[in-house]
Formats: sequence, structure tokens, C-alpha cells
Amino acid sequence: MKVVIIGGVAGGASCAARLRRLDENAEIVMVERGPYVSYANCGLPYHVGGIIADEASLLIASPQLFRDQFAIEVRTNTEAVAIDAKAKTVCLRDVTTGTTKLESYDKLVLSPGAVSIKPPIPGIDHPSIFHVRTVPDARAIRAWMTSNPKGKRAVVIGGGFIGLEMVENLVHRGFDVTLLELADQVLAPLDVEQSRVVEDVLRRHGVALALGEAVSGFVHQASGEIDVLTKAGTTYTANIVILALGVRPDTELAKSAGLKLGERGGIRVDEQMRTSDHDIYAVGDAVEVHDMVTGADTLLALAGPANRQGRIAADAIKGRPSRFRGVQGTAIIGLFGTTVAWTGASEKTLRRLGREDFEKIYLYPNHHARYYPGAKTISMKLIFAKSDGRILGAQAYGEEGVDRRIDVIATLIQKGGTVYDLEEAELCYAPQYGSAKDAANFAGMIAANVLRNDMPIAHWSTDHGSLLLDVRESAEIEAYAVSNATHIPLKQLRARLSELPQDREIAVICRSGQRAYLATRILLQNGFSAKTLSGGVLAVQKKT
Amino acid sequence: MKVVIIGGVAGGASCAARLRRLDENAEIVMVERGPYVSYANCGLPYHVGGIIADEASLLIASPQLFRDQFAIEVRTNTEAVAIDAKAKTVCLRDVTTGTTKLESYDKLVLSPGAVSIKPPIPGIDHPSIFHVRTVPDARAIRAWMTSNPKGKRAVVIGGGFIGLEMVENLVHRGFDVTLLELADQVLAPLDVEQSRVVEDVLRRHGVALALGEAVSGFVHQASGEIDVLTKAGTTYTANIVILALGVRPDTELAKSAGLKLGERGGIRVDEQMRTSDHDIYAVGDAVEVHDMVTGADTLLALAGPANRQGRIAADAIKGRPSRFRGVQGTAIIGLFGTTVAWTGASEKTLRRLGREDFEKIYLYPNHHARYYPGAKTISMKLIFAKSDGRILGAQAYGEEGVDRRIDVIATLIQKGGTVYDLEEAELCYAPQYGSAKDAANFAGMIAANVLRNDMPIAHWSTDHGSLLLDVRESAEIEAYAVSNATHIPLKQLRARLSELPQDREIAVICRSGQRAYLATRILLQNGFSAKTLSGGVLAVQKKT
Repeated sequence: MKVVIIGGVAGGASCAARLRRLDENAEIVMVERGPYVSYANCGLPYHVGGIIADEASLLIASPQLFRDQFAIEVRTNTEAVAIDAKAKTVCLRDVTTGTTKLESYDKLVLSPGAVSIKPPIPGIDHPSIFHVRTVPDARAIRAWMTSNPKGKRAVVIGGGFIGLEMVENLVHRGFDVTLLELADQVLAPLDVEQSRVVEDVLRRHGVALALGEAVSGFVHQASGEIDVLTKAGTTYTANIVILALGVRPDTELAKSAGLKLGERGGIRVDEQMRTSDHDIYAVGDAVEVHDMVTGADTLLALAGPANRQGRIAADAIKGRPSRFRGVQGTAIIGLFGTTVAWTGASEKTLRRLGREDFEKIYLYPNHHARYYPGAKTISMKLIFAKSDGRILGAQAYGEEGVDRRIDVIATLIQKGGTVYDLEEAELCYAPQYGSAKDAANFAGMIAANVLRNDMPIAHWSTDHGSLLLDVRESAEIEAYAVSNATHIPLKQLRARLSELPQDREIAVICRSGQRAYLATRILLQNGFSAKTLSGGVLAVQKKT
Repeated sequence: MKVVIIGGVAGGASCAARLRRLDENAEIVMVERGPYVSYANCGLPYHVGGIIADEASLLIASPQLFRDQFAIEVRTNTEAVAIDAKAKTVCLRDVTTGTTKLESYDKLVLSPGAVSIKPPIPGIDHPSIFHVRTVPDARAIRAWMTSNPKGKRAVVIGGGFIGLEMVENLVHRGFDVTLLELADQVLAPLDVEQSRVVEDVLRRHGVALALGEAVSGFVHQASGEIDVLTKAGTTYTANIVILALGVRPDTELAKSAGLKLGERGGIRVDEQMRTSDHDIYAVGDAVEVHDMVTGADTLLALAGPANRQGRIAADAIKGRPSRFRGVQGTAIIGLFGTTVAWTGASEKTLRRLGREDFEKIYLYPNHHARYYPGAKTISMKLIFAKSDGRILGAQAYGEEGVDRRIDVIATLIQKGGTVYDLEEAELCYAPQYGSAKDAANFAGMIAANVLRNDMPIAHWSTDHGSLLLDVRESAEIEAYAVSNATHIPLKQLRARLSELPQDREIAVICRSGQRAYLATRILLQNGFSAKTLSGGVLAVQKKT
């Protein structure tokens, strides 16, 4: 059996290696249009930033290693230009010489990845305007920096993963950085109130943010500087521009084979990563995947799922029953010491899909016991089904322990777990690592309190018409007052119930929600109509 | 309804607070024999070590706070000395005055905790011999240190959590520390080969270890020094001795009420934390719990489960259907920058219970992408059912990311997850946080490879009669040679198969197991009988 694999990075390389482990006798050819296979594109921003000093460390496995250890024939600088699915051949072009050659296959695996979006904006082609997609891209940026040591003004266009990581790394290298983003928020997978915090982090580190700004053109000055023009009429002048406008599935080759695409524009595959052609599989950023939380088809350009898909395609080719279980969109980014991570569906995705069976909570637990020095706040949003408590998604940020809590929640989502599972999770606890009631447990407990109707909740933005009752201490209110709130400290509440109306809903607020919960319990049991404002003053402050 | 709660730390305090939230009208009396309620006993070693500088930060909630916020009557320095279950009264003794008083109850909750084991060894009562169980204990040790600034030799007796944490904190304060432990390993929940690493960490930090040593007596010298005598005839001289011999459930009071105890000596309770008396509940370190992995009854003196039990007892008293799902024994300890954590069943527990349906693997993945600076090895052991792949337990240690991976595995164990789930887990990945194939995924993949029979494995200690084939490079073998091994580097293996015997089992070894897996695949597909030595040279080195 002869298997040709187009694309030698995450999905393709995983598929090739797995296939060899399953079949010593298969003929395996892996084709890569760039000069390198199996390189760490997730590390490129950090190589530009100098944190990963040595380019060679980005090259995880060389063509030589594939030959020596896996007996896989690797052809770099080779582009697949057309597929004849009927003849079962693929036309390969040597990028260096331009010569083409037909390669036959029994099974073909497409792992072409995604291509950087590059809109036809006037002036976009210029030696000081860069993408960050490949090792040569990173090398070019580093070369530019060496040649232009005085050029310290950068404009990054696009506030996704790569854009933000580039922002951090450019700041790290002493650049003044402006970030332009078309949307009104950075990090599109986040709900907007969560993205606000990320934007604050960026501003605190001197990054100029221009949200809702569309680039209309690039004007090249004689000095070498670039004027970045926006549709709103603003001009940002830079020495260097980084384009990080996102990616789209590379489906040119798939189209040449007549393969079906999905509604989101990716290659359509089944659970075994097989395309609409029986002998062609596709994996990685180019394919459309199933979101296991929402059930919707989606695109997700991340290395973890790509690797899994590569393995599954190899299994399928060898007749094994492995199936791709879909994605849940777990992701993480580090920015200036703050970690932002999420998993599952966002509130806005659920709203976009017309889902109504969900509730959300905000909480601000410590990453480890408060009594042990160095406790940091984890700011969490948990989204769960009202009907049965199934966890739908979570978003969190903080300085420590964010990855761990999101991973716990991701694992529960994978297993169809509920907020009741989360409140009971038995997690690692010693004072320097967590709390007897871990941050993750707190999220589960609060959500379960809501679902058991022990704690009806309200959200700041949807709070209308209620009496707002602030149960914090006077000193706290002096430090930060919530406007239009009645003030009764929790400890006086039982004695002062007569001051509150029985005929009006009371929305209780405190610092983070814990005392408001107690107050809500007192009020409910005394015949009042009461709700807890989820996340308290902390949530209000983050949103405004 | 009047509820009396005996014990005001983790389980009791959680129960009291939850009960008030559920019932504004209940009369709740919480009794604590010591001077403080709701204090952080997990922090005591770090207070002794000076890391938690202020004693007050250990006091999480004061009696005043319980009165003000929860309308709970707290009686500190008050000991419950007897229960009359028929009359539904408990006899309370004021520790200061010695006066007693009968308190009636409708429901009684016992959260007496566990008592430090203090065997009747000659000379054990001495002002320089301490326990570390309460805030006054820690205060006494600190006072001793102030009074004896030149006394810098310490003997810690007992190598469990508290013993080891005290060792670290004493070293931190400049002590020469000797650790005596009766068993032949520290940290009894760990399998012995994993505990060896902990012992190495201790030795590297100057701790003298005496394993398998039973203390026979304490001789007090006129100088104030203490000679610690062992049955083996050795004498260890110390200025201060810390007793950390473990704890046993405090069941005196339960016995006075005629409550049933379990086989392990804890108070027997049902899933709602109810004892053999209909109106008496028990929670925390004093109760016997169900191990959800093994099904066996067990004792587990940890704060997390105690808190959960307290909440469930309150629910049960209020007629709610909450049930305690049992424990899985998730635990963590930090020692000199190394984190050691585990969850689920150990191999030795499974063997003790006569279980045969399990397999184990060893692996040594990086805590984040190798190409990003600062990657640290996580050393993992995963134990899983051979029959269906269910995860039974895991033990891990390393400098970074250990808590996170054990928490992921703990969450899967909670949900009955398998190694197939673990290999597919979609976890947080960016280069500074993890790998596209996370350390946890690797554990799942390797285990799944074993169960799918793609990678038959052998373990070093059980490896007899096979031909040992080392597939590492020559330079690696020069650095560390495995005795009696045949050497063929992986990349030459396909060409040199004729050098290997077809009629003898071949056990393949490399550094960590990855190349051995490839070699095993090559050999199996060429008709050889081959196995991979799990964990490779790294596992061999850790075990010897």
C-alpha cells in the first residue's frame, strides 16, 4: 500500500509516524511545500521575541529523522498542485526547480493546513509587512530587526492568538506597539466582558489598542516608515507591520479533487477523517470539525486536535475503528504574566446558535489557600445547562493556576460532566497548591446553588427594577461604592429586615458574591424575593 | 430544630455554615475543644517554617464571624465528653473551668477529627518533643525556637505529609534534620519506587533519612538535648523532636454513644453521613469512608473530603438527597521545589486487595513544549484496568505542572474515565503551558497502546529471560549503559534484524520508552516476539 501525505507539520507528521507504526510495509511519502517538516509554528512568536533563541529548536523532527526512524520518504519544498481522484494520482511540483511529477497513491492524506488571510489592501505587499506562519516568516522578521535596529514602532493587525503573542514579544523586544483589530474585542472566542480584561492587560503594558478599526491601506514613506490607514480615517505610523488577520482552511487542492467542503469552508470529513472521496483523508486546520458541545460544524486551527486527527486517519487507513470525537475548543494564551484560557462554548456562541438552555456565573476564587503567601485571584466564568447542569463552557484568567482549572473543566466537558460533578471533584490540595474547596469546586458549588434554586442570581447588565442591596462593610463601600444601592452590612441584616420591601425584588451585591449568597438565603427564608448578583462588585468592575 | 455540632474545624464548620444557609430558624451550636474554630491546620508546618509569618492568617473564621454572619453559637475551649443518644443530650465540659453541662439536641453532628498517634514510648513527654496538630502546637514550637536559638538539630519521626512538610520547614529554618520512619519508605500512599524519588529529594537537601527505624525511647540529657533511641540500637541526638506518626480517628465520643465503628476503626456512616444512630451524623477525619476506586472502606484525613461531608450532613439533616460519593485519595505535597501528587489506587493497594485486573506504565514527558525554554520532566506512573481501560490511579512528581495532570486524571477517575479518554483529552496548549500532545495525553496514548496490544510491555523488575535490546544511540550508552544489553540503534534496526533471535522474547529499552515502542512495532511486524520496557532507562534509574 502506498500512502501519500500532503503536508508535513502537525496533522500530516502525526499521521505519517502513526501509519508507519501500524504498518512496516506501507510505502509512505510525505510532501511539504515549505523547507521544513514537523516544526513548532506555535513557537514562532517567541522565536521572534528572542525567548526561543535558537531557530533549530523549533524544528522538532527533521526529514532525516523521518527517514531513519520511520522509513518515510520526505519531500520538502514540494507542492501538491492537483489531484486526479479518479486516476489516484497527485501532481507534485518542485518549488525550487518548478518541475512537476505525477505521484500515484492508494490512499491520500491531505494536511495542507490553513493560509494566513491577506486581504487585497493597497500597499500590503512590502518588505516591512510580515506574516507569522512559517519558520522563514520568523526568520525574515528577525532579519528585519537586525537590519533596522532603530525601527521600534510596530503595528500588529489582528487580535487573535498570533496577533497578541506577537504584541507581547514585540514589547519584550522594546517596540512601541499598536494593535489594530476589526472587531470590538480581542480574542474572538472569549465573551466580550472577558476580553475586556485582556485588553486592560495589554494597555497596562503600554500597548495602544485600536478596536473596531478596519485597515484601508498602507502608504510607504521614503523614510521606510509605513502609514497604516484605517477606514475611520486614522493613520498609524510604523516601522514594521505584522499581519495576523487569522487563517482560513487551505482547500485549493481539495477543490481540485472535487472534494466536498463544509458550510464553514473547510474540507468535509467523517468521524474517521475520510473526505467525500473514499481514498482521500484530510486532517488538521483545513478540515471542518464537529463541536462536541454545541453540535455545530466549526473550524479550529489548533495543533492538539490536528495531531489527534492525524493519528485517527492513520488508524482508519489501516481499517481500525478509531473515531474523532470532535472538538471542544480548549485554548490558552499567556500575556505579560496573565494566563487566559477557555474550553467549551462561549455565551455568545450559544446565543448565536439560538440556545436558551444555559446559565452563567462569575466567580473570583484564589488559586491557592488565602492564608499561604502569594494567593492570586482566578477570574472565572462558568456556563452550564439550566436543565441538567451539564457544563457547557468556561473562561478564566489570572496569574496562576488558570490552566489547571480549565483543564479540569475541559475533562468534565469531555465526559459530559455536570456542575454537580465539579462541586464534588476531589482535586490536589495543599496550601501552596489549592484550597480544600478548590477554585474549580467553588465554580461547581455556586452553579449547583443556582440550579437547586438556593441562590437565584441576577447579572449586572440585566438587572433592572430591583432594589439593589449592598451587604459589604462600610469601609469597603467607601473604597468603591455601587450607585443607587441600599446599604445594610451582612452582619446587621437579620436585625434590619424590616427596612426592606416585601413587594419588590431585591438584588444583593457584595465583593465577590459569597456574602450576597448568605444574604439571599436570609432574605428568601424570610419571605423576600431576592437574587444574588453573580460575581458581585468584582464582576461589575470588570464589565465597566 | 436544634443541631449541635461537635468540632469546629473543616467538616464541622462547613456543616454549620451550610446548615444555616439551608435553615434560618434552626438553633445551631458549634462546640470546639480548642481555642479556635475553622483554622488552617494544613498551614501549620509553614507557620512553623516562617513562610506563613502571621499566626492570625491561619484563623480563617472567628467565633465572632460565625455569630455575626451565621447566627451560630460557638463554644470554644469546650469538650464534648459523653453522648446520651437515648435522651438526645451531649455532656459538654468547659476546658478552662472544668464545669460540665448537658446540652440537648434534635440532631447531633460529630466532627471530632483525628488524634495524633502518640505511642507509650519511654520519655515521650518532654517540653522539646512536639506534635503539629493545632495552632497552640505550632505556637509552642515557635516559642521553643525563640528560646533555643542555638538548638539546630531536629529529629522528625514519621514520613507522612506532616512529617515531610515539617522536615522541609525545619531545613528552611536552618536545622539539621534527621527523619525517622518505621516503614521502609516515606509517604505510605505512594508505591515504593515512587517514594524513592522523594527520599532522594530529601537527601539532596541535606536531610538524613533513617527508614525502617522504630523509636524505642527518648533520653533527656542534662544539656537539654534528647537522645532518640531506636530498636536497631542507633541513637540520634536532637535539640527538638517532632512527632508526626500519623493520626487515628477520634472515636471516644462516638463509642460513648454506642455508635458503630468500621473495620478500620473510624465511625461508620452511610452515604448521607448518618451514623448507626438515626439522629447523629459524623463527618471528617473520624469517619470511615468508601474508596470509590477499590470499593474498600478506608480512612482519609484530608480537608477536602471533610468539607464535602460537612455539607452533605447539613443537606441530609434538612431532608435533601445529597450523597457522599466516596473518596479517591487525591493528594499533593511540595518538597524543596518538587511536587509529588497522586490520585486513585496505588499498585500496592491493588495487590493488597488481591486485584489482578490492572497494568501500569511509567513515562517521563515534559511539562510543556520542549522547544520553549524551561521544560521540566514530569515523572508519571499510571495504573489502569487491563479489561476495560478504566483509570485506577496515578502518581507523579516533578518541578512544574504535576498538580494539573493529576487533577485531570482525578477528574477522569471521578467520571469512570478510561485511558482512551485520556489520550483524547483536549487540554490547554500553548508552548509555555503544555504540548500539542500533553503529558496527560501521552499517558493515555501509551496505556492505550498497551491495551490495544500495539505495545506489549515489560517492567524492569519483572524482566527475566528476555534478550535485552537497547536501541539508543552510542553516545547515550556511553553515558549510561544497561548491563547485558544488545545494542542496535533504532535507525539501524530495520537493516540489522537478522542479528536478532526469532525464538526468544526481546525486551526493548531506550531512554524513556518512545524509541523502544517504535522498535517494538518494527520487531512485531517482522515476526519477532517483542516487548517495550516501560519508562526505559529513566525508569531503571529511578528504581535502582
